[in-house]
Amino acid sequence: MSERIYNFSAGPGVLPEPVLKQAQKDLWNLGGSGIGVLEHSHRGKAIDKVWAEAEADCREVGSIPDTHKVLWLTGGASQQFWQIPMNFLRKGETADYINTGVWATKAIQDAKLFGTVHLAATSEDRNFCYIPKQDAIKHSASPRYVHYTSNNTIFGTEWKSEPRVPAGAPLIGDNSSDIYSKPIDFSRYALMYAGAQKNLGAAGVTLVVARKDFLETGARDLPPLLQYRTFANEDNRPNTPPVFAVYLVGQVLKWIKSEGGVAAMAERNQAKARLIYDYLDASSLFRPFADKDSRSLMNITFRTPNEDTNAKFIKEAAAAGLDGLKAHRSTGGMRASIYNAFPIDGCRALVQFMEKFEKANR
Amino acid sequence: MSERIYNFSAGPGVLPEPVLKQAQKDLWNLGGSGIGVLEHSHRGKAIDKVWAEAEADCREVGSIPDTHKVLWLTGGASQQFWQIPMNFLRKGETADYINTGVWATKAIQDAKLFGTVHLAATSEDRNFCYIPKQDAIKHSASPRYVHYTSNNTIFGTEWKSEPRVPAGAPLIGDNSSDIYSKPIDFSRYALMYAGAQKNLGAAGVTLVVARKDFLETGARDLPPLLQYRTFANEDNRPNTPPVFAVYLVGQVLKWIKSEGGVAAMAERNQAKARLIYDYLDASSLFRPFADKDSRSLMNITFRTPNEDTNAKFIKEAAAAGLDGLKAHRSTGGMRASIYNAFPIDGCRALVQFMEKFEKANR
Repeated sequence: MSERIYNFSAGPGVLPEPVLKQAQKDLWNLGGSGIGVLEHSHRGKAIDKVWAEAEADCREVGSIPDTHKVLWLTGGASQQFWQIPMNFLRKGETADYINTGVWATKAIQDAKLFGTVHLAATSEDRNFCYIPKQDAIKHSASPRYVHYTSNNTIFGTEWKSEPRVPAGAPLIGDNSSDIYSKPIDFSRYALMYAGAQKNLGAAGVTLVVARKDFLETGARDLPPLLQYRTFANEDNRPNTPPVFAVYLVGQVLKWIKSEGGVAAMAERNQAKARLIYDYLDASSLFRPFADKDSRSLMNITFRTPNEDTNAKFIKEAAAAGLDGLKAHRSTGGMRASIYNAFPIDGCRALVQFMEKFEKANR
Repeated sequence: MSERIYNFSAGPGVLPEPVLKQAQKDLWNLGGSGIGVLEHSHRGKAIDKVWAEAEADCREVGSIPDTHKVLWLTGGASQQFWQIPMNFLRKGETADYINTGVWATKAIQDAKLFGTVHLAATSEDRNFCYIPKQDAIKHSASPRYVHYTSNNTIFGTEWKSEPRVPAGAPLIGDNSSDIYSKPIDFSRYALMYAGAQKNLGAAGVTLVVARKDFLETGARDLPPLLQYRTFANEDNRPNTPPVFAVYLVGQVLKWIKSEGGVAAMAERNQAKARLIYDYLDASSLFRPFADKDSRSLMNITFRTPNEDTNAKFIKEAAAAGLDGLKAHRSTGGMRASIYNAFPIDGCRALVQFMEKFEKANR
């Protein structure tokens, strides 16, 4: 096996190496069946087992209550931006959105095609470098639902806990970039969605965890495959599902379990992020982008005072085996994405490299 | 590497073994990048290359004209059942559908939610065991488009060439189960779609090949990700695409090229199917389901006179390493799916097994 490097990509991101090794085997021959995981009928016994285990592990790792369904959908988290209002927001109804960045903005744009959007809070005034305080969130009279983004991949901000919503208002979360990086209380959510390609697996599947009674309030005049209940009622296989993507999530969940579950992930992720933030706080060259109380443990955004130095840093880091550190153009500078599968040694290597770079460029 | 068996699954189906071996390597480290194919940013250079090659090979193998766009979508071919009328069929407009089986029926049901469906022809009168003759197809006055299904996976029937349509009427084809099994004249299509999991790759991506000017006639009041033009204009990456599924299609296309292209595939597929149909025609125990002039080269449906014998055959065949021969409940009996990657030796093995079974059960 040839050498692998430190991959700070914001997503698709690094996967656990034991998962990759298992996938290599199963690609050729799944569980001694003589057929690879890509080639099995999605309704055969081998995939029945993959399916049942992925859901059971998803529930166990996330402590998902029986009130909630586990769905595997496609089209990325971005599909949820329109599928949610298409199902749950009618003309004349109002949904509350909290705008904390690029993805929340896109969700708002799509929702406006279906009903009324009330902007309950936004951090756009300071280029989304912070999470709004609870008392800055102003809800509409009776929102159909409240939508928020738990972690903002691009800006490197993260909610420390879910926003409080008016009594009875369904909470919907786009938790794509911090799902299962820490414990999550699913009972607070009417619907939670997450693209798999950061903490859960590879691009190609979106996990939706939703309360059954909320799903039943959705539109019934849509094509069956656009209604969430169809997937809930047909074991996520009303059509040919993205088998391999679900299989991979299952393997990642087994890895999370073997590493001690989401509590262990949270502890590890705190330690990893602390290494980098501590260095940034002490540095006289680098400065973090996000406000201290809003910092993401998943995506650490930072920069030097000028773009030339940023570009030099990114280039030299890549040459040193630290890949994917260029930030989104919305912030400029650098971003280190350190999802569950990213090793703490990679964080140490980044800090060492920053130290060296700072000495050479002060 | 442990032993693999003959996999007659109707889809997801067997993949070329060289493709599986390449995928095993690339899962760990793509092209010496130090990062696996699942873990690369979908906007990075490594995936740019995967992307460009997959499209170029798709065009080369299929001789796709410059008038047409190549799109990679998600949600399976079933998503196209509703996405096509959502984009191209308004209230008051009529689309013509030819019903040749379960999938065409589902496409018709979804289309009725958006506009008027004219049933131009159907083979339902004899449980879809044949393809309608051209003179049995009666079009509406001015169809918005004509939809047909090139190969019927469940019933084992296949069009020998596209239906003729009224002058100026856009032809739309669901070519999921015979795409690239033979040459296809894309210039006849306004839009062609195919789930990848039969001849092209694994479940998780749908190939759409569509004329640019036809795409421009689609609705503009939909969320951008529901409009085909968004994918056409943004290099199929307006969101995080199913990278691995597209990568795999690219690898399968390289394999098709290395084996001589779609002309060679067609020759091979004819020879494979002939082995089995010749045996069925001579057999006094087994009989083919589809009319002789409508037979599919991809999915061969057949049965014995009674269900107990069918069940016995399927069970004993599986024990002999011939897997996935149970047909869909719509036909009962057996089905041998022998897509591009299915080896001719597997067809020989099936015939030998049928001979042996027939002798023992006559």
